[in-house]
Amino acid sequence: MAISHDAHTVKQFDLQLANLRNLVLEMGGLVEDQIKRAIKALDEEDMTAAREVIARDRLINGMQVKIDEDCISLIALRQPVSSDLRTVMALFNTVSELERIGDGTKKVARMTIQIYDGVSSPPSARLLRDVTPMAELAAEMLHNGLDALVRLDVEKALHIIRSDDDLDQEFQSALRRLITYMMEDSRTIGHAINVIFIIKALERIGDHCKNIAEHIVYLVEGKNIQQRRNLDMSLATFAQEKQQEQQP
Amino acid sequence: MAISHDAHTVKQFDLQLANLRNLVLEMGGLVEDQIKRAIKALDEEDMTAAREVIARDRLINGMQVKIDEDCISLIALRQPVSSDLRTVMALFNTVSELERIGDGTKKVARMTIQIYDGVSSPPSARLLRDVTPMAELAAEMLHNGLDALVRLDVEKALHIIRSDDDLDQEFQSALRRLITYMMEDSRTIGHAINVIFIIKALERIGDHCKNIAEHIVYLVEGKNIQQRRNLDMSLATFAQEKQQEQQP
Repeated sequence: MAISHDAHTVKQFDLQLANLRNLVLEMGGLVEDQIKRAIKALDEEDMTAAREVIARDRLINGMQVKIDEDCISLIALRQPVSSDLRTVMALFNTVSELERIGDGTKKVARMTIQIYDGVSSPPSARLLRDVTPMAELAAEMLHNGLDALVRLDVEKALHIIRSDDDLDQEFQSALRRLITYMMEDSRTIGHAINVIFIIKALERIGDHCKNIAEHIVYLVEGKNIQQRRNLDMSLATFAQEKQQEQQP
Repeated sequence: MAISHDAHTVKQFDLQLANLRNLVLEMGGLVEDQIKRAIKALDEEDMTAAREVIARDRLINGMQVKIDEDCISLIALRQPVSSDLRTVMALFNTVSELERIGDGTKKVARMTIQIYDGVSSPPSARLLRDVTPMAELAAEMLHNGLDALVRLDVEKALHIIRSDDDLDQEFQSALRRLITYMMEDSRTIGHAINVIFIIKALERIGDHCKNIAEHIVYLVEGKNIQQRRNLDMSLATFAQEKQQEQQP
């Protein structure tokens, strides 16, 4: 009797965890769609589409609230331990990254409106040339991140972490080019600053994808790759500093 | 016998929760100190101090790992429910905001080095005039956030949420001024872009403080003030869209 009760509880937990994972993936799919819509709106100078991206962000925030609640309920009701608990906490963390990626797409849409809405002279194409490739890389990182989350694929997660270096380099090159354009022609400054905020938002989307990948590695390998590095050393240095401060 | 066991368990949980809260406050104190050090380094053009800020960020990341682990252990061992579980989850979320505020201070320090290190002509004072007031407001928001967390003070938390609007306005004014300077004198563009990244980092620190305040309100009032807004409406709109998409 005890065994069948336990088996029932385990099955219930697994079902609820599968539901939770599906919800996270659904939210991830929505966010991925938002990146694509935001960039399409920018490419096509489509203010209506940009406003839709901004409005749809509320939906993503709503999903975060729902999934956060589901995580808390699942922990409270099923009281998972060890790897099950870690899985729920990793999903809880992933949802918060997805919500921030959603914020990033909203920023891109807002900047699109600032660039085109009621402006007499739109920016020249060269100002925007780096945006689409960066957005494609960011969207690909998110797609791979969701895929790695489903399969708990550490190799894929590590690949995303490396991709983030590429995105950072693209950001730096794009920034240098934009600064050059501004110096050549000060009339481009207003538009260029808006483009800088767009590429900055894309670079941050990459950071959030990297964070998702790190949660996956942490979940599978049981260690935090980013933050364990040099931790002991830092703590030792800090203790030393404290001691020195306390000396007369 | 059962009662004394329960009382013992409750006391153990309360003790561990108090320890957890103290650790979060200690981490918050460190982060607050980092903001102040980063701005002092910028004011005094002190590259050594800026490099120290960057190095100390590892310590903050290390504390996040430790506290995250403590949260997970506390949930696994004590299996808290209802408001106790919500408190642990709110601390778990707060730590993630603090870590991101730490990242922001690291960015300010990095930009300080870019602005002053090995540069023949440092920026004029007017380029940097908005930085210190913005940093002071951001540091005050964090200080109040930690205070509101200790006292579970909803009034103070709501005050922080309002302060974030002030910081956003300061950011917008500072940005307009910087664009004007760049247009007046294109030689200031390089420095001005670095200052824009600094004020952007400060504006984001404000966002994270607002998030901490929202976690406090959520914890005390049991509702998510930011994200519940219009959620039902958004979900209804989304359902409608889905339906329309499926129609031939």
